Amino acid sequence: MSAAKTLTAPVAPGGTIGILGGGQLGRMLALAAARLGLKTHILSYEPDAPAMQVTSNLTYMARETRDGLQEFAASCDVITYEFENISPLTVEILGDFGCVRPGLKALAVTQDRYEEKNFVRKLGLATAPFWPINHDEDFDAALLAAGQNAIFKTRRLGYDGKGQAKVGSTDELAKAFHANGQAPSILEAFVDFEFEASVIAARGMNGEFAAYDPPENLHEHHILRRSTVPSRLSPAQCEEAKAIAHRIADALDYVGVFAVELFVTKDGALLVNEIAPRVHNSGHWTIEACLTSQFEQHIRAVAGWPLGDVARHCDAAMENILGAEAADWRGLLARGGCLHLYGKSEIRAGRKMGHITFLSAKK
Amino acid sequence: MSAAKTLTAPVAPGGTIGILGGGQLGRMLALAAARLGLKTHILSYEPDAPAMQVTSNLTYMARETRDGLQEFAASCDVITYEFENISPLTVEILGDFGCVRPGLKALAVTQDRYEEKNFVRKLGLATAPFWPINHDEDFDAALLAAGQNAIFKTRRLGYDGKGQAKVGSTDELAKAFHANGQAPSILEAFVDFEFEASVIAARGMNGEFAAYDPPENLHEHHILRRSTVPSRLSPAQCEEAKAIAHRIADALDYVGVFAVELFVTKDGALLVNEIAPRVHNSGHWTIEACLTSQFEQHIRAVAGWPLGDVARHCDAAMENILGAEAADWRGLLARGGCLHLYGKSEIRAGRKMGHITFLSAKK
Repeated sequence: MSAAKTLTAPVAPGGTIGILGGGQLGRMLALAAARLGLKTHILSYEPDAPAMQVTSNLTYMARETRDGLQEFAASCDVITYEFENISPLTVEILGDFGCVRPGLKALAVTQDRYEEKNFVRKLGLATAPFWPINHDEDFDAALLAAGQNAIFKTRRLGYDGKGQAKVGSTDELAKAFHANGQAPSILEAFVDFEFEASVIAARGMNGEFAAYDPPENLHEHHILRRSTVPSRLSPAQCEEAKAIAHRIADALDYVGVFAVELFVTKDGALLVNEIAPRVHNSGHWTIEACLTSQFEQHIRAVAGWPLGDVARHCDAAMENILGAEAADWRGLLARGGCLHLYGKSEIRAGRKMGHITFLSAKK
Repeated sequence: MSAAKTLTAPVAPGGTIGILGGGQLGRMLALAAARLGLKTHILSYEPDAPAMQVTSNLTYMARETRDGLQEFAASCDVITYEFENISPLTVEILGDFGCVRPGLKALAVTQDRYEEKNFVRKLGLATAPFWPINHDEDFDAALLAAGQNAIFKTRRLGYDGKGQAKVGSTDELAKAFHANGQAPSILEAFVDFEFEASVIAARGMNGEFAAYDPPENLHEHHILRRSTVPSRLSPAQCEEAKAIAHRIADALDYVGVFAVELFVTKDGALLVNEIAPRVHNSGHWTIEACLTSQFEQHIRAVAGWPLGDVARHCDAAMENILGAEAADWRGLLARGGCLHLYGKSEIRAGRKMGHITFLSAKK
């Protein structure tokens, strides 16, 4: 058994960034790394994953094995990930054998909604009210406190609305809890927000911090449809949003890019909804509208490089291309803007197939 | 023997663009193709070529073979190239077995300086005066006509000043001619230009044409050092430069991106210096400063897609990183701007290792 890598020097050009996960985020990270003269090694548990098309250095593992993970870790100078739902075995092995950034603390906190919300609260930041749901006995008190319009959410493995349900009665809550195998969950009070926003920010090895202009986000059926910058946030709210991200990053001793999703209430308060310890769909517009994209910024941070300039030189709107919308690629081209397609061969309902970014002169 | 592919329908997302050549231009073409959801197959005669790091689909051939080229062609929906000095065997085989864009006519014309200059002249466009040098007997008349400050150039295989020499006497001309194995050459009259510029333009399958704002180019030791947009060209000169490119593209029935290098004389005339039937170093700033980069534009054109928007949203300056300058990558990062490193492991004097693009608000 070799000792854990405790990399402190930056990864030099020509070095290898290991990326766990072969989806579109891994793909765009690999493309950004290539621009900087860095190699990537993609590890995917899915065959034919999008990120595997853009590197010559790839490992497909049908299922995670200790040997496979060790071999992967040994080939990389530093390892990062494109998704936070990494299995405990992977976390353990990579923690032992590789230098993983962002750190494992960020994973531990953000893999569990309940832990995450408690962590945020302890930092003095606001969230929607929430109550743990671990047993049928928890239903009544939680519903009484949350009111008739509550949201049920499993603590783990939820994304794009999976493991979530709107519940207004004990029966509905019971149904959602049992449909999800009685997994530890929470009940969250419904927030009648004015709009949703997010902060995409980065923290470097030396603690430096940089946040992009926060986009306003529109979701449809729990899936992001459109991100727009500038948002309706006031300059003071933008600064508050960035300060929230800064406090979270420092508390996690974070290295890399992350996103904080926010509810903006009708009276102007910012509530933390979720932390994503990775590059984020609501930051894709940074590829065209900023000198340093969120993908380059993440690679810079995990490689131990100085952070890049996050100034925005254009206004931007990013729209996701979902499911069957990708089939009409001629129609997408005719819309103008900057088209990104992720190389996914199979179209599935709601699947993120690509996005388009539209730029306009800064107002 | 299978029939030649005569592709007329566009290549759909998921299709494969074959790229001859594994250098930085092939690398940036592959990165642009990936953004559009297209796969790439890189064919390189060099091992560990830069473009081979950014695709999972690569063929290294130590030397070209008929079988190898046929197999490559069969795996691609369309084939393009990053350099014009493709061997006659490759041209023949790919012409027989694959759909090659830009067409072979563009290669035939631009592989030979003498042919190229005659072609340009026949279109009614201006060049520096030139005379063929095929035998020692050609020296005296050519030198007499060209004057004391002439440039010797081999007709084939020259780039970055290779195969060129400043000659002022019969002795110097003889030395240059014999040093290059008495290969067919030309003598060109020295042009005391005000500055150099280039037009990067594209022509689509259906004949549509789009040209970027022409950059001004500064060369040092025959190697491009800096490209700047806007240039010192007047609006009328910019239009003239684009019209020159348009005429050349139509005459070659061209499909793809190409560059026309221009001398701008002290009295404001534009002389065609060279045509490059490929993406061009003086167009690298389009990655950041335009909605559609020259690399994306080339991929769009050869895939049979509509051309993208070439509008420039920022002023830009691109500087090449040459040879040992790449070793100080920390210093390069500290300069700001947008850094591109090409993944070349070996530093050699004058070798293009990367570039940096600096953006500023449009003046």
